[in-house]
Amino acid sequence: MEAVLAANRALYEALERGDLEAVEEVWLGAADADDKGGVVCVHPGWPVLRGRAQVTRSYMLIMMNTEYIQFFLTDVEAEVHGDVALVTCTENILSGGEAEEEGELGPLVGGKVVSTNLFRRTPAGWKLWSHHGSPVLTSGDEEDED
Amino acid sequence: MEAVLAANRALYEALERGDLEAVEEVWLGAADADDKGGVVCVHPGWPVLRGRAQVTRSYMLIMMNTEYIQFFLTDVEAEVHGDVALVTCTENILSGGEAEEEGELGPLVGGKVVSTNLFRRTPAGWKLWSHHGSPVLTSGDEEDED
Repeated sequence: MEAVLAANRALYEALERGDLEAVEEVWLGAADADDKGGVVCVHPGWPVLRGRAQVTRSYMLIMMNTEYIQFFLTDVEAEVHGDVALVTCTENILSGGEAEEEGELGPLVGGKVVSTNLFRRTPAGWKLWSHHGSPVLTSGDEEDED
Repeated sequence: MEAVLAANRALYEALERGDLEAVEEVWLGAADADDKGGVVCVHPGWPVLRGRAQVTRSYMLIMMNTEYIQFFLTDVEAEVHGDVALVTCTENILSGGEAEEEGELGPLVGGKVVSTNLFRRTPAGWKLWSHHGSPVLTSGDEEDED
């Protein structure tokens, strides 16, 4: 279970560093993994992206438009079933876009995204098979969110 | 694979009929299933719901506020890995809320949601472990969507 949570954290730490290679390494089908299963990714508000090429391209686009991003993960829950692990979490995001002036940071904005991250056990460790993030627009029927 | 796709269709057909019992039957942990794994559900714009009680309550709320709903599923893709199946699809939704006048149907609205549905193989067939639906707000980097 700890290894699953570490793999989940690795995704967000790679995004915070803007390290595309590290992000690719988190996903299934990385060079050192035997398992080339088809990956699937849904960013908040986006359609479904399929396959490593589309997924990598999407992260390139996101990184190009993000000067600064930090994830505070809350409500992290994981369940392992056979060689598959399901992790759900709330991403409390603080991010900044491109600055108006060189060397400056754009205005920081906060956001809340809920994510379902699905990992597969491979010889190279737990690898991300599917990521689905969506914006939280309403509190639904939960009154006691914090 | 056909059984997985049938289980996926069963979810949407139950929602179209407003049949709460049939929706509950699609989910993991139904009375006839040995497997009581913790279910997770994210409706578009909602926070994470955990456990059968929360999930069932959410569908009750949705059904109470929906007079009419129809799902046209497109871009359905499934991949089975061991006892877990990952299905992604686009839900093209036509729905109507409560009517102003008795016996009338409220205005119909269209919407597009992308869903990641995760099923587990149980003695009672494929059962839904996790559903994550999110609104498509932008076309991302896909120019040729249909």
